[in-house]
Amino acid sequence: MTQHRNRQIRLVKRPNGIPQVEHFALAEDVVGSPAEGEILVKNLHLSVDPAQRGWANDEGNYSDPVPLNSPMRALAAGEIIESRTEGFAPGDRVYGWFGWQEFCLTRPAAILRRIVEKNLPLTASLGALGINGLTAYLALHKLGMPRPGETVLVSTAAGSVGSFVGQLARNAGCTVIGVTGSPDKVDRAVARYGYSAAIDYRHETDIAAAIGQLCPNGIDIFFDNTGGMIADAARNFMRTHGRIIQCGTASVPNWTPVPTGPRVERQILTKRLRWSGFVIFDHVAEFSEAAAVLARLIEDGKLVYDEDIVRGLENAPETLAGLYKGENTGKAIVSLV
Amino acid sequence: MTQHRNRQIRLVKRPNGIPQVEHFALAEDVVGSPAEGEILVKNLHLSVDPAQRGWANDEGNYSDPVPLNSPMRALAAGEIIESRTEGFAPGDRVYGWFGWQEFCLTRPAAILRRIVEKNLPLTASLGALGINGLTAYLALHKLGMPRPGETVLVSTAAGSVGSFVGQLARNAGCTVIGVTGSPDKVDRAVARYGYSAAIDYRHETDIAAAIGQLCPNGIDIFFDNTGGMIADAARNFMRTHGRIIQCGTASVPNWTPVPTGPRVERQILTKRLRWSGFVIFDHVAEFSEAAAVLARLIEDGKLVYDEDIVRGLENAPETLAGLYKGENTGKAIVSLV
Repeated sequence: MTQHRNRQIRLVKRPNGIPQVEHFALAEDVVGSPAEGEILVKNLHLSVDPAQRGWANDEGNYSDPVPLNSPMRALAAGEIIESRTEGFAPGDRVYGWFGWQEFCLTRPAAILRRIVEKNLPLTASLGALGINGLTAYLALHKLGMPRPGETVLVSTAAGSVGSFVGQLARNAGCTVIGVTGSPDKVDRAVARYGYSAAIDYRHETDIAAAIGQLCPNGIDIFFDNTGGMIADAARNFMRTHGRIIQCGTASVPNWTPVPTGPRVERQILTKRLRWSGFVIFDHVAEFSEAAAVLARLIEDGKLVYDEDIVRGLENAPETLAGLYKGENTGKAIVSLV
Repeated sequence: MTQHRNRQIRLVKRPNGIPQVEHFALAEDVVGSPAEGEILVKNLHLSVDPAQRGWANDEGNYSDPVPLNSPMRALAAGEIIESRTEGFAPGDRVYGWFGWQEFCLTRPAAILRRIVEKNLPLTASLGALGINGLTAYLALHKLGMPRPGETVLVSTAAGSVGSFVGQLARNAGCTVIGVTGSPDKVDRAVARYGYSAAIDYRHETDIAAAIGQLCPNGIDIFFDNTGGMIADAARNFMRTHGRIIQCGTASVPNWTPVPTGPRVERQILTKRLRWSGFVIFDHVAEFSEAAAVLARLIEDGKLVYDEDIVRGLENAPETLAGLYKGENTGKAIVSLV
């Protein structure tokens, strides 16, 4: 039986808020060959995602917290190197729950999507065709239902999801306005990601006024990745029958205790808003179809994507912590090749 | 040309919050015969509705505020006594925007529904077949989408809308829990309106604990007529993919300035809630069909309704102010016959 030395990043301390380097440790394990029904995946690229904060914390989330002293839960793109499951063969490339480690001995249930694209780099399956692009596409179209001529506001406009929302909403005939965190990101949102204009919330003294100026007809769809005060300002400009998509809460560092903000009941009632939460893992059944649409858009030059690739497993924790400082300019990926 | 002395209740002072008797005055006008395209309606029963607070105030609502010194905006059931519009004839009974007055010279656009039921009293067209029953039916089914076995929590359980929501949700196979404002209302909610249990929020010291106890599996649909702290408590018990229907904000006396409460972004995201505002007047096209369903349920003994009927136009303002004190035990109606 073949054995592989398997280096992994384990969660060793429970963060309360943003995970830092100290919450993780590099460790080593050994994996053997698959048993009946299992596959062995060799990870090639690891995904680093804001949602990992929620997985590492223990605060009533949409999934159970990662157990301490186990490999950090993470998505990855890899190649099956051994299989004892019918329908899965060595050489198959897959995207799924393989963790921050070099190898993953698992079952096909851990796979979110088979990677079938021939003309795109494998890293694209983590971001543009992974949860970021899929989130943008499925949340915007299923919950936002954009119509030509509508106005879409996106918080974290230049982020790993927002960069796709801008382009997809523009492709749908909408005017797209962004909120982002630096002059450089404003420039990229407009130059690359389909935004008509964007607001730098760190330097803008009156965000509400800026939103009002850039959305003179109000907001039909608010694609919210931040929550907090930016969202409060945006909500005041919602049009009747507007849709709010809650896709993240990046601007609120801690939810224990729950912070306060302006009450929303009256706005929701009088404007007949529809405010929905979106978690991409509810929509796995649609991944293959949606990824095919996104791959076609990329090949046709209608969708661009950016990646920040760091090499080396050991850099994963620092890359994650950096996400919350707004340091990345594209999908954060830790490459093992 | 026939002329009718037309007594009316006018809005003479702009309330900031709950309208009181002093904001209204009884006045008299004269109405003549309809011009081409008009109808003359004789009001028989006037509707008194919590939503009138919003119409009388001037605070960015879903409709323009009632102009000062004009008849108070109100729904009414009446009979056409003269018509110069094809398709509308004297004797036709109609439900619509006829105001707090004895006669209304208007156009068919003011009609929400023709009253076609033969076996129900005319007052039923204001409540059970009017905006209260229609709100309960359309909001619950269109936004709540109840499934058998689900748990529905309703604030103002014994109120003019909640009394129907309880029965309709029970008819749909749900367990229905109410929140209401007196021991007597708790009793009626359970005895008459389909509730399995109800909480008296005025006497219950720990509403959250009471909700948790009565909804051991959590809440699938929260039909919220109050907002505020009751809603905050309820929201914590929402199940994944739960639906919140914002149908009123009766417990929050004033929205200028906007009061604060716990932030909801994280709950909406992690539980994938869908929180929608419902205003019945968006759904007028469905009134006839929905009223026919409700009428059939009443005739079949599957839906009961209660009315608080006060006689005399001059009592309308006091009846409205009383609504917010929780005095009514059924649909508030001012009868002119």
